[in-house]
Amino acid sequence: MNGKVRGSLIIVGGHEQKSNDSERPILEEIAERARRRKGGLVLLTVATQLPEEVAADYRAVFRELGVRDLNVVDIRSREDAYNSETVAKVRDAGVVYFTGGDQLRITSQVGDSPTFQCLMEIYRRGATIAGTSAGAAAMSETMLISGPGDQSNEISTLGMAPGLGFLSGVVVDSHFAERGRFGRLLGAVAQNPKNLGLGIDEDTAIFVEREEHFRVLGSGAVYVVDGTGVSYSSLSERHPEGILSIYDVKVHVLGDGDVYDLKARCPVLPDEVRQQAAS
Amino acid sequence: MNGKVRGSLIIVGGHEQKSNDSERPILEEIAERARRRKGGLVLLTVATQLPEEVAADYRAVFRELGVRDLNVVDIRSREDAYNSETVAKVRDAGVVYFTGGDQLRITSQVGDSPTFQCLMEIYRRGATIAGTSAGAAAMSETMLISGPGDQSNEISTLGMAPGLGFLSGVVVDSHFAERGRFGRLLGAVAQNPKNLGLGIDEDTAIFVEREEHFRVLGSGAVYVVDGTGVSYSSLSERHPEGILSIYDVKVHVLGDGDVYDLKARCPVLPDEVRQQAAS
Repeated sequence: MNGKVRGSLIIVGGHEQKSNDSERPILEEIAERARRRKGGLVLLTVATQLPEEVAADYRAVFRELGVRDLNVVDIRSREDAYNSETVAKVRDAGVVYFTGGDQLRITSQVGDSPTFQCLMEIYRRGATIAGTSAGAAAMSETMLISGPGDQSNEISTLGMAPGLGFLSGVVVDSHFAERGRFGRLLGAVAQNPKNLGLGIDEDTAIFVEREEHFRVLGSGAVYVVDGTGVSYSSLSERHPEGILSIYDVKVHVLGDGDVYDLKARCPVLPDEVRQQAAS
Repeated sequence: MNGKVRGSLIIVGGHEQKSNDSERPILEEIAERARRRKGGLVLLTVATQLPEEVAADYRAVFRELGVRDLNVVDIRSREDAYNSETVAKVRDAGVVYFTGGDQLRITSQVGDSPTFQCLMEIYRRGATIAGTSAGAAAMSETMLISGPGDQSNEISTLGMAPGLGFLSGVVVDSHFAERGRFGRLLGAVAQNPKNLGLGIDEDTAIFVEREEHFRVLGSGAVYVVDGTGVSYSSLSERHPEGILSIYDVKVHVLGDGDVYDLKARCPVLPDEVRQQAAS
């Protein structure tokens, strides 16, 4: 992406706590941003086949969390994404939230449409773009669309597609530990180590500020898979099948409150995080 | 362990192929060693609650694979592990195979008994000690006995216990990708980064020669988790709960035919493996 970005991204690994029986820090933070900002919250249900049910659920939660200004944008076709009323709703948003579902529905229906152009514009100007599950996966320039869970990655099985590109230089995977996706994220990083792999657990989010750094919030972990130092990967030999071998991958596991510097490509040590918070 | 070791270890991640409908390279290799060596194969069923069924299964497979000299040693108590007939059977073995079950049964019934002393003696002299699943986990000095699968590691949830100690400086986990155990192996490595984490998939084995290097055989992957360069782990802060954060872990993924040098703590690049095989 070109030009200075002033907005934020909230990328959620799926299944964020919604019930008021328990803590729900991710949705609380999203609600707080929506309350604070002019334009309120726009919910984008394009990823799901059940837009009405999903919208009703989130409406109830965000109402509990004090969001009075909530608009649902129910895009079901590219025609909808070209509709000027849709674009107008998005233009005014302070926070946009992509629900879960199928990430290919997001990119195929919204990609490169006036709605997308408008989203990119408000993001650059300072809006927050959030997404959970499929909505998280679609944030990166290249997104994972298929690949095995709970098994090691075979060279032939990885499906990738172009994402929306709000965050460049990363590949995001959601439901990470829960669906045993370490192997497939490694495969995505091996395909091009310039991309940092970000594996986000359920009920866990990263808050990305101005493309510079992110902070973790939630009950799970975030895995950063850095292929910069990879000394060997069997992809280079064009083996058509078999296990993907890859040597010298760097991995960081971050929990609630931990901060990662996207420019320097390293976690910020907790002492520094505390010092920054105090200063 | 002190003194030069001349034996081999075969550490299997569980569910190795047994049916003659498919390839079963791991059991073929074990059978070949048993056929080649004086003393044949001794099957140790101590880990399982169903020793007769498990023994019958392996008997049938190894008979198909041409092993004529197979003894089953059915240890159900420490008394059995002190029995001189048991010890005599083990003393003559060329290859010993620990079945799956519960690794705490292996260590609690066999640990430090005359049977164990004898196993260690024949291993040093040149025998092959093999084990699958629980039998794999018990090989290391410290073994994982509990901990979450398919979720990120919480600091409080990791259970470890002293293993048999055939291979020092490692912690072995089996059923690795299949049960999403990356988080728990990271936790074990974080507890003491001197231990190399070895996560072995199902139907996959490492063949360790003289404690110097291992080669991978089978359809899955082997994950090596090296904590030598860890720059931060939240264990040091004695957080009683929450996600274990850990920065700068090195990970290698190895597939069939790949070789890892345990002394140098790095994978051997495939070109070098080929050169060594040719020379």
